[in-house]
Amino acid sequence: MKLSDIGEFGLIDRFSKDFLKNLPKDITGIGDDAAVIPWNQKQSLLVTTDMLIEESHFIKSTISPEELGHKSLAVNLSDIAAMGGTPTFAFLSLGLTPDLTVEWVDRFFKGFQSLAEKYSVRLLGGDTTKSKESIIINVTVLGNIQNKHIKFRSNASLGDLVCVTGKLGDSGAGLKFLLEQKPLSQTAKRLIRHHHQPEPHISEGQWLGRKSGVHAMMDISDGIGSDAKHLIKSSECGIDIYLDRLPLSEDLKSVCATHKWNAYKLASSGGEDYCLLLTVDPKAFAKLSADFLATFHRPLFMIGEVTGNIGILNYSLHEKPYTFENSGWDHFKKH
Amino acid sequence: MKLSDIGEFGLIDRFSKDFLKNLPKDITGIGDDAAVIPWNQKQSLLVTTDMLIEESHFIKSTISPEELGHKSLAVNLSDIAAMGGTPTFAFLSLGLTPDLTVEWVDRFFKGFQSLAEKYSVRLLGGDTTKSKESIIINVTVLGNIQNKHIKFRSNASLGDLVCVTGKLGDSGAGLKFLLEQKPLSQTAKRLIRHHHQPEPHISEGQWLGRKSGVHAMMDISDGIGSDAKHLIKSSECGIDIYLDRLPLSEDLKSVCATHKWNAYKLASSGGEDYCLLLTVDPKAFAKLSADFLATFHRPLFMIGEVTGNIGILNYSLHEKPYTFENSGWDHFKKH
Repeated sequence: MKLSDIGEFGLIDRFSKDFLKNLPKDITGIGDDAAVIPWNQKQSLLVTTDMLIEESHFIKSTISPEELGHKSLAVNLSDIAAMGGTPTFAFLSLGLTPDLTVEWVDRFFKGFQSLAEKYSVRLLGGDTTKSKESIIINVTVLGNIQNKHIKFRSNASLGDLVCVTGKLGDSGAGLKFLLEQKPLSQTAKRLIRHHHQPEPHISEGQWLGRKSGVHAMMDISDGIGSDAKHLIKSSECGIDIYLDRLPLSEDLKSVCATHKWNAYKLASSGGEDYCLLLTVDPKAFAKLSADFLATFHRPLFMIGEVTGNIGILNYSLHEKPYTFENSGWDHFKKH
Repeated sequence: MKLSDIGEFGLIDRFSKDFLKNLPKDITGIGDDAAVIPWNQKQSLLVTTDMLIEESHFIKSTISPEELGHKSLAVNLSDIAAMGGTPTFAFLSLGLTPDLTVEWVDRFFKGFQSLAEKYSVRLLGGDTTKSKESIIINVTVLGNIQNKHIKFRSNASLGDLVCVTGKLGDSGAGLKFLLEQKPLSQTAKRLIRHHHQPEPHISEGQWLGRKSGVHAMMDISDGIGSDAKHLIKSSECGIDIYLDRLPLSEDLKSVCATHKWNAYKLASSGGEDYCLLLTVDPKAFAKLSADFLATFHRPLFMIGEVTGNIGILNYSLHEKPYTFENSGWDHFKKH
């Protein structure tokens, strides 16, 4: 059987069963943004890891070494943010191709280190090795969290409001420009920057982690189309997404108008937004969203609702059902 | 400047300075087999990570998926063993090429899981992604250890005896057979098995960690020629290695005689032995080696001495100085 027959998530399901068997109840393994390991009676250790491979995840000629250093740490910090946690330590494995110079590696570290310092994350180890054809980057990040503040994917409740902490689709549009090799306007360059230098929502995650009205939380890495399905599976619920509520930037709207791109598709399946997707007790929403705005000077966007249609993700546009061909990224499926 | 000009360890030195700056004293970062992070007053968390890349670290056509799964975990367990610790949790990132089948991945997991179960290590997470050309495996392993039992590379003392916990060179000879594509005798196949299925010295490491007569410890991954240099650097000492004392298997001696290979060279720079290199208080050696033999039914091999020739690794053979052309593996240098 080929990997493309079962896909990335089919593969994870296939092997994770064995590893989740007999896992102590207070440990969270495969299936959330980060693993949760009890540290003491009050705190837990969070662990997450992500691999970036040249050509599959980035195109070397289009991304600066600083951006790549930033991004490879950012995607992991985002996973810690998704649990409500505080990142602490990082471990970096690098597979470096023979064409790279010491200067390139210096610039990569500059980008990595600059983001690490911003969030007081310390690099404590790693591995450097030679790679024949592709640059490989694997980052593992540890974090900590108060047990009472951990937000799991599995905690969504019927009737919860589905929210996101930032605009969607800019990163996906940036990637589309890179892949379609269109001439790059200033707007396109700004969108590409969202793709290359995502800002993890650490402060937002920590703040939301402390709110009891926030039930489930995860980060948006594959696009809400795919990520909401993970939440649905973990929480055994359904989700309705109101496409007209998706927060779109002026830049995204402008390039979609120019190039006749479907902005809703980019916002729901472009992926790599690295903001947070959460479900909120509807009774808590008014105060939570007002406090979020007052704290972060940006709105918390309500984009849908948790339903009882177990396993079902529905989209609607102006209250009418809406269907996409593809919804979300799977590394092994053909796109 | 090219990466090959400064080498793997030059590169690590170059960037680790920035990251080690202002590191709290009770945390060990880059520069030992695993990072050490205080857990509570009595215990610490150990973290290590290693990346294996197809063609650089293994040749897919020669290694079974089970062996590869075993080896990718074993090399990390060996790093935890080198600190005297107990491995607890693993995280696995996989970059999978399009030619692989689900059956291949199942067999890889079987090998990984079998070793994990042997040492009660739980896989708690990871990442799976597509890789265009090479299979990529990155494993991160956590472990724990009593603070008083941690063995650092930096603790060797003048006059210490240098010891190893297992025979050297079998893995290097196995690799030589693979690279030279010689016809494979049963002996060659056994040597290749040492290369493909190293057994991490976890129990030995835990046992040695509890002995106060053991001063410095590390695992042998690049070959003692290269690894002893790391110990020399960390402990600011020198080391004399007595080549005639290196423990060589009958298999190694036999293939070296047949193929006119230099057994001392394979034993000192073949690499990937994954036994432990340690320095022992000479006053403690007699009892320690007797107890080791009684416990593990194998000798603890004394192969050299810690000297005051700071920074210098000397080899001797039958009490005469001996020089190799290359001594130890560096991923970015030409061999």
